[in-house]
Amino acid sequence: MAGIADVAHAAGVSKATASRALTGSGYVSDATRERVRAAAKDLGYVPTTSAVSLVTGRHRTVGVVIPALDRWFFGQVLAGVQEALLERGYDLALYGAPPESDVRREMFEHFLARRRFDGIVAVGIEPSTSELERLLAFGKPVVSVGGFEAATHAVSIDDHAAARIATEHLLGLGHRSIAFVGGDPDRTWMSFGDGRRLAGYLAAMDDAGLADAARHVRCEATMPGGYRAAVDLLGDRLTRPTAIVGVCDEVAVGTIIAARRLGIRVPEHLSVVGIDDHEYAEMFSLTTLQQRPHQQGRAAVDLLLAQLEEATTPAVRVAEPARLIVRSSTAAVDDDASAIVGNLP
Amino acid sequence: MAGIADVAHAAGVSKATASRALTGSGYVSDATRERVRAAAKDLGYVPTTSAVSLVTGRHRTVGVVIPALDRWFFGQVLAGVQEALLERGYDLALYGAPPESDVRREMFEHFLARRRFDGIVAVGIEPSTSELERLLAFGKPVVSVGGFEAATHAVSIDDHAAARIATEHLLGLGHRSIAFVGGDPDRTWMSFGDGRRLAGYLAAMDDAGLADAARHVRCEATMPGGYRAAVDLLGDRLTRPTAIVGVCDEVAVGTIIAARRLGIRVPEHLSVVGIDDHEYAEMFSLTTLQQRPHQQGRAAVDLLLAQLEEATTPAVRVAEPARLIVRSSTAAVDDDASAIVGNLP
Repeated sequence: MAGIADVAHAAGVSKATASRALTGSGYVSDATRERVRAAAKDLGYVPTTSAVSLVTGRHRTVGVVIPALDRWFFGQVLAGVQEALLERGYDLALYGAPPESDVRREMFEHFLARRRFDGIVAVGIEPSTSELERLLAFGKPVVSVGGFEAATHAVSIDDHAAARIATEHLLGLGHRSIAFVGGDPDRTWMSFGDGRRLAGYLAAMDDAGLADAARHVRCEATMPGGYRAAVDLLGDRLTRPTAIVGVCDEVAVGTIIAARRLGIRVPEHLSVVGIDDHEYAEMFSLTTLQQRPHQQGRAAVDLLLAQLEEATTPAVRVAEPARLIVRSSTAAVDDDASAIVGNLP
Repeated sequence: MAGIADVAHAAGVSKATASRALTGSGYVSDATRERVRAAAKDLGYVPTTSAVSLVTGRHRTVGVVIPALDRWFFGQVLAGVQEALLERGYDLALYGAPPESDVRREMFEHFLARRRFDGIVAVGIEPSTSELERLLAFGKPVVSVGGFEAATHAVSIDDHAAARIATEHLLGLGHRSIAFVGGDPDRTWMSFGDGRRLAGYLAAMDDAGLADAARHVRCEATMPGGYRAAVDLLGDRLTRPTAIVGVCDEVAVGTIIAARRLGIRVPEHLSVVGIDDHEYAEMFSLTTLQQRPHQQGRAAVDLLLAQLEEATTPAVRVAEPARLIVRSSTAAVDDDASAIVGNLP
């Protein structure tokens, strides 16, 4: 493989000049730059980036801090970030570790402190936490995904509004006994976004004069989590709600599967609405609030590189709207079903 | 943040000596090394890795080439690789792009050619292809995951054997009309592993004298793909199989959901077996061949770092066994059901 010496020789210049021409740092005449670049191209020369980094202070690398690699939302965001970075010529340094884990603490102590990146996309990071402060303290641009109130440039849906719209959709169909399923405020697996969704549901119930009827059923925000929670929740005919807001589509689909197992027809006897528009939503005819995490990942890269490449730092927050998609998992409340529910106001 | 000059000053040595002591390259007395390291620790000094790379030729980075970031198997492998690399002090450079895409070609042309890594974990890469040759041509260690016959160190289950065992489980229960659902040999979304699973199914059918009864139903290897394929496959009572082997658990679960929608009881009238032991398998009581992609990712890192750090290159292939887990999606063939199937031998 050709080295910088080969390129310099072919272009008839010194190694130092060839290096300046290729890294864009220091003065080189246009004619020389062209000659060096042509020689590099002919020889298939790719600069070792360690050398380029030392000269330019740039790594052409973006760090991605992310809490999970095996969940739909985070996988979609990561895919969008990766696609946009490849298009823009940046490497992606992945820092994936679950919140509160030893390995995550180690990641902040040692890996991120090496600062082998020009900027960071922080996915699902809690706002106003020491983690976010530490990221900002590196003095490099940070863009958050999925943290609407974060003290950084951010891309997100408004989780509070999304859950409110989902709940109001059910209220509009005449439902009064509506449970919110998923997440756990006391546990680390309740994410910031999930907490805002719960708050949005509670606000909508409160506005409808149904604060006392509000019910939060805790479970892990996964399909099996929603399934197990719904088996308990729906098992008792006397206390069964007529409608469910899932903290995310995976939970919502889990509750639909549980309902089918229990012989409860959706939407005739149970309405279910989710948040996400997950790739499984259509298959389960799930009414949901759509978000597009792949696009959010791409938008985060755009925001980050604008700061890196244009040296401007507009305080931008991109709040992706969440659009209600009505499929057939929701319907007007069934009077027979609601008649047997004991806890109506 | 402290620089190398601060560390050198605190330790009472030159910058060059401090650098040698911290990178481990070149001679430094043990006493000096200890003094420099103590000073670095006191000052919270983290070496800029560009400088370390130039001195050592090492990046402390492993590249991960992977075809998808939003599918269960690949997400699990990536999580395992990430966890093991964090534990071992290596950064992870992510190169995720779908096969046959422009962005993937670009990735091989430009990104990987920069060689900003000490070695590569290649996930789901086709063996004996130009891509694999190009990776090997970089002259750095490569470990494959999910490519059992690849010309590299590799971690994988034996996909052929897994599908054979799944098929033989159904044959042992008396099934004769068994369809294989998922993948498409003519399309790019049939992966190498999927092709080997199809071959394992065909071999088992052939051995049972049922080569003529073998049926491959093509579909994308996803839950919605399996669902749509099964709606077609199971819709006609006269040609309906009594059992299905799914190319993966996601497809198998999709066929179970389709069966429920069509009022076909599993396992009474249809047995279904998958391959993976996906996190949804238990929820659907799915009989399956277990693989543990998270563990495979960790094992790939072990194999790679052994080559990097021990300078030995044993030709190791780790074939993870696939274990049959029998749940309640499979049962002995129902004579009433099989009686109406027209294509029995």
